[in-house]
Amino acid sequence: MGYPNVNTLWAETLAEELAAGGVDAVCLSPGSRSTPLTVAFAEHPEIRTFSHLDERSAAFFALGRARRTGKPTPLVCTSGTAAANFHPAVIEADQSGVPMLLLTADRPPELTDSGANQTVDQEKLYGDAVRWYRDMPEPEAEPRKVRMLRTTAARSLAAATGSTPGPVHLNCRFRKPLEPTPVPDDDPEGVPDDWADGDRSAAEGRDGPFVRTEQGRPELPADEVVRVARAVEAADRGLLVAGPADDGLAPEALEKLAAATGFPVLADPLSDLRFGPHVDRLDAPVCGGYDAYLGSDAVASWADPDVVLRFGASPTSKPLRHSLRDSDCRQFVVDPAGGWTEAEFTASDLLVADPNATASALAERVTARGEASWRRRFAAAERAHWNAVEDALAPGERYWEGGVLADAARLAPDPTTLFVSNSMPVRDLDRFGRPRTANLTVLGNRGASGIDGITSTALGAGSATDDPLVLVTGDLAYYHDMNGLLALGRCGVDATIVLVNNDGGGIFGILPIAEHDTFESQFRTPHGLDFGPTGDLYGLEFRRVGDRAAFEEAFEKSVDSAGTQVIEIQFDSGESHDRREELTERSRRAIATR
Amino acid sequence: MGYPNVNTLWAETLAEELAAGGVDAVCLSPGSRSTPLTVAFAEHPEIRTFSHLDERSAAFFALGRARRTGKPTPLVCTSGTAAANFHPAVIEADQSGVPMLLLTADRPPELTDSGANQTVDQEKLYGDAVRWYRDMPEPEAEPRKVRMLRTTAARSLAAATGSTPGPVHLNCRFRKPLEPTPVPDDDPEGVPDDWADGDRSAAEGRDGPFVRTEQGRPELPADEVVRVARAVEAADRGLLVAGPADDGLAPEALEKLAAATGFPVLADPLSDLRFGPHVDRLDAPVCGGYDAYLGSDAVASWADPDVVLRFGASPTSKPLRHSLRDSDCRQFVVDPAGGWTEAEFTASDLLVADPNATASALAERVTARGEASWRRRFAAAERAHWNAVEDALAPGERYWEGGVLADAARLAPDPTTLFVSNSMPVRDLDRFGRPRTANLTVLGNRGASGIDGITSTALGAGSATDDPLVLVTGDLAYYHDMNGLLALGRCGVDATIVLVNNDGGGIFGILPIAEHDTFESQFRTPHGLDFGPTGDLYGLEFRRVGDRAAFEEAFEKSVDSAGTQVIEIQFDSGESHDRREELTERSRRAIATR
Repeated sequence: MGYPNVNTLWAETLAEELAAGGVDAVCLSPGSRSTPLTVAFAEHPEIRTFSHLDERSAAFFALGRARRTGKPTPLVCTSGTAAANFHPAVIEADQSGVPMLLLTADRPPELTDSGANQTVDQEKLYGDAVRWYRDMPEPEAEPRKVRMLRTTAARSLAAATGSTPGPVHLNCRFRKPLEPTPVPDDDPEGVPDDWADGDRSAAEGRDGPFVRTEQGRPELPADEVVRVARAVEAADRGLLVAGPADDGLAPEALEKLAAATGFPVLADPLSDLRFGPHVDRLDAPVCGGYDAYLGSDAVASWADPDVVLRFGASPTSKPLRHSLRDSDCRQFVVDPAGGWTEAEFTASDLLVADPNATASALAERVTARGEASWRRRFAAAERAHWNAVEDALAPGERYWEGGVLADAARLAPDPTTLFVSNSMPVRDLDRFGRPRTANLTVLGNRGASGIDGITSTALGAGSATDDPLVLVTGDLAYYHDMNGLLALGRCGVDATIVLVNNDGGGIFGILPIAEHDTFESQFRTPHGLDFGPTGDLYGLEFRRVGDRAAFEEAFEKSVDSAGTQVIEIQFDSGESHDRREELTERSRRAIATR
Repeated sequence: MGYPNVNTLWAETLAEELAAGGVDAVCLSPGSRSTPLTVAFAEHPEIRTFSHLDERSAAFFALGRARRTGKPTPLVCTSGTAAANFHPAVIEADQSGVPMLLLTADRPPELTDSGANQTVDQEKLYGDAVRWYRDMPEPEAEPRKVRMLRTTAARSLAAATGSTPGPVHLNCRFRKPLEPTPVPDDDPEGVPDDWADGDRSAAEGRDGPFVRTEQGRPELPADEVVRVARAVEAADRGLLVAGPADDGLAPEALEKLAAATGFPVLADPLSDLRFGPHVDRLDAPVCGGYDAYLGSDAVASWADPDVVLRFGASPTSKPLRHSLRDSDCRQFVVDPAGGWTEAEFTASDLLVADPNATASALAERVTARGEASWRRRFAAAERAHWNAVEDALAPGERYWEGGVLADAARLAPDPTTLFVSNSMPVRDLDRFGRPRTANLTVLGNRGASGIDGITSTALGAGSATDDPLVLVTGDLAYYHDMNGLLALGRCGVDATIVLVNNDGGGIFGILPIAEHDTFESQFRTPHGLDFGPTGDLYGLEFRRVGDRAAFEEAFEKSVDSAGTQVIEIQFDSGESHDRREELTERSRRAIATR
């Protein structure tokens, strides 16, 4: 029948159905119990394999790839603590709605809680963080079970990519022999030939996967669109707020909505709307400086908005979130996943609907635009802010961490995948990354906002396209996922890694704890690590630069060349913090006095 | 009252009670939400702090320290994915019964599932792997709540160190301000002075902790001891089998039992009974070579044992486990935790009782010793095996991975904490580590047998005493927890790290998958890493040695000197495997023909 034993039948069938369902890559970590899955994926002609030695990095790599592609990259690991190493990335995938498929190998049921080697309780290992969980039955060459397996493969992909995308966990139990060793008793007599030889789809008139899934997108009924459109066109001062989203509002839909409403667009750097050709085409300002001026005295005289249309998750910018909180107005949150990601509890209407269909439908219905002076006000504030940032980057001015983000966004080739770490890089990009027309796909892990797995997530995203990959990270994140650098050579990813090194937790300098005795030893926690040796360790070029000119030169050279370059630039976190505040103050003054 | 706000009251009270309960160290990872706990622990005069940047390594470090001391080292982390990074070590602690106390900071309840930054579902994050879980109520200066808090501190220690030791998880919610900033409204008026100023114990006649816990140990009733003693003394050929245990059968109790029964002792390297002064004092052979000869043709003529007394977990040695499985006899498993760690399902009697009390009670009741010829048979087999191993180490003989373990066990100073990694080092120590009278505390992570967190666990164990620390690890484990090396300088631990580098998963070479096409790319997975740069990265001496003489010299120099030395020795895993088999064959021949 072509299958030496039931484990092979089972694993090959699973791989085949996943491939038919669109899976084109898988992350494998070496181990014994997962042998059937590893062999099946490695031998599948249409599935690319990425081999990772550290399962934590593997899971973040798969997360990053899925962020960039919208499709899950299944993860395979052996039994035991290996599976628990996936957990941090599972939580990030849950929180940010990224598809993920976890295939954890496990011992057969008779060894559960028996003290057998590498046997732990993997049932519901990730708790409520997964969309769907199955403890898979034992492999068996029985027609109904094989149909179940094929259906489960389709269902797991559907659950991972459905209306609320996220992780799915299949716990896969295998009994020895795990290798494709002939087991005469396993001869899958009961399974029809046309399933076993791969022709079963055609034979049964199926088209590709055993179960083809089409996921409908929620759309508002027409009368509801009218109701929202009435509220929108009645407003003089509206805002379109685009928060972080991997697959959020598309530029085309935004263009239509901006044209119809004339509302300024506040584009989070992770919204995928701060950068792109639409920036110049839009019939309203695309704002990226709001983190510096909203909520400040500079705009204290501005009236509140009277309607807000929000897309994506809660914005990265705290001033923006607080400004929305303090605006006593109608706030529509459009979220196809119905996620209620609304930490300030300011939404008045939740629209569980496709953002693009909703924006387009609204654009057709809205018949009056908001005040031109409101638009102009934002446009002028933006001009003042970006001029202030540009001045701060002039020769002779002191360079600071935010300047690195400003430059990375400015110098990144068109197109680029730009990944920014928590905790400061994403905030600095938010404040200092000027909107431009280049196609920058900006990604970050803002679901749970951890500093773990940053490098691996970036490299996973980079593995998905031929676009140049730029990662801007801090020293703590760089240290935390140093193991992730192994994927550069092993998984064939090239990157430009900008390492903003302030020797510890720079972010704590902006928190009140900076005033206390334990700050240095327990919060800023300087590590004093010289990361130079990571160059030799992982076969990358490690270059330390001291000023802006050297950074620019190294950056431009790196994005133009093959291989991976780490460009380290060191800052004193206290000075950088002061400079950030100083420039924000300059920007506010410019806005107030324009 | 001495407390600027309720968060400070809460965290200091918790730290104070834990210290009163015996906690003398804590592992802190930097973060904002955990600020109250971090400050309270850092400022407590009797608690030593270990600061870790990677929470995964932190948790394994705490695990290792607890393995060595029997007491938990609490772990503190911020909210979000940080807590999930503890998960692999939590599973190992659960499986091997090591005390652990997880203090995960969390957002206040109103932000649960709100989309707020770094807010994830931390409730029951570790599932069934913990002995006790509490989602802590919000800090409040109310007498009953503070009593609850003090009681909870005591209870968490009791649960972590009770009859089934393991992890305990307190999810600790804090609302801003997190720093010890005065909050006039928080004035803890309701809490009596004598609690707030630290004198509350004396004032209420308490002695140390608010609740002093005494954990009784299970003891068999006298008639049950007699019943077991009858079965034991009726046996001609008995075995005492000591499996892995951190706090298992003590040498004194073993001596008494061996004297009374005359049974050979099969001492797992992780039983803490393979090495120590008792080895020469025992009135029966302490066997360590059984992994080479049990179940082989060399001993095919031996009669089966007719009674087995087992202590600790399932033995590391597969030949021993299979030999016990194939022995159709009465098998008593003594386990105070009632853990049923019995993967071959051969036990006939489970004695949920303290091993030392049980062994001593039995020694007093057993009135007849087993056959002398049975004892002599094991003693002779051991002599033959160790002579064969010694011959294999002679000049001119090819060195192999197992020889490194033989030498590490032989050369380790008295006393030493010797930590051995999964997957091959522990197996090689089992087969080639000769019993000796030195006090070697041998530790490993055999609960879940992962290769993650090995370095951190070893360094955590090393942090607990002034004994020299020797870690023997493989290249995959060394890579997996490279971040753990940061603790060397940061936490002030010195070690001798023996790195057996066979460039990938050597263990897979002993599995049937070695015959298949995917072996090299997906199983052995050579990484080609040159670990030399880890010397510069982590401020340790990295030395690569090429033969046995150089290894011996480097090892002896390292254990005699300060600082940390990594001694790398490279092997071809295939050759090492062949050599292991060849020497095992030699040992068996020597036994068969003695």
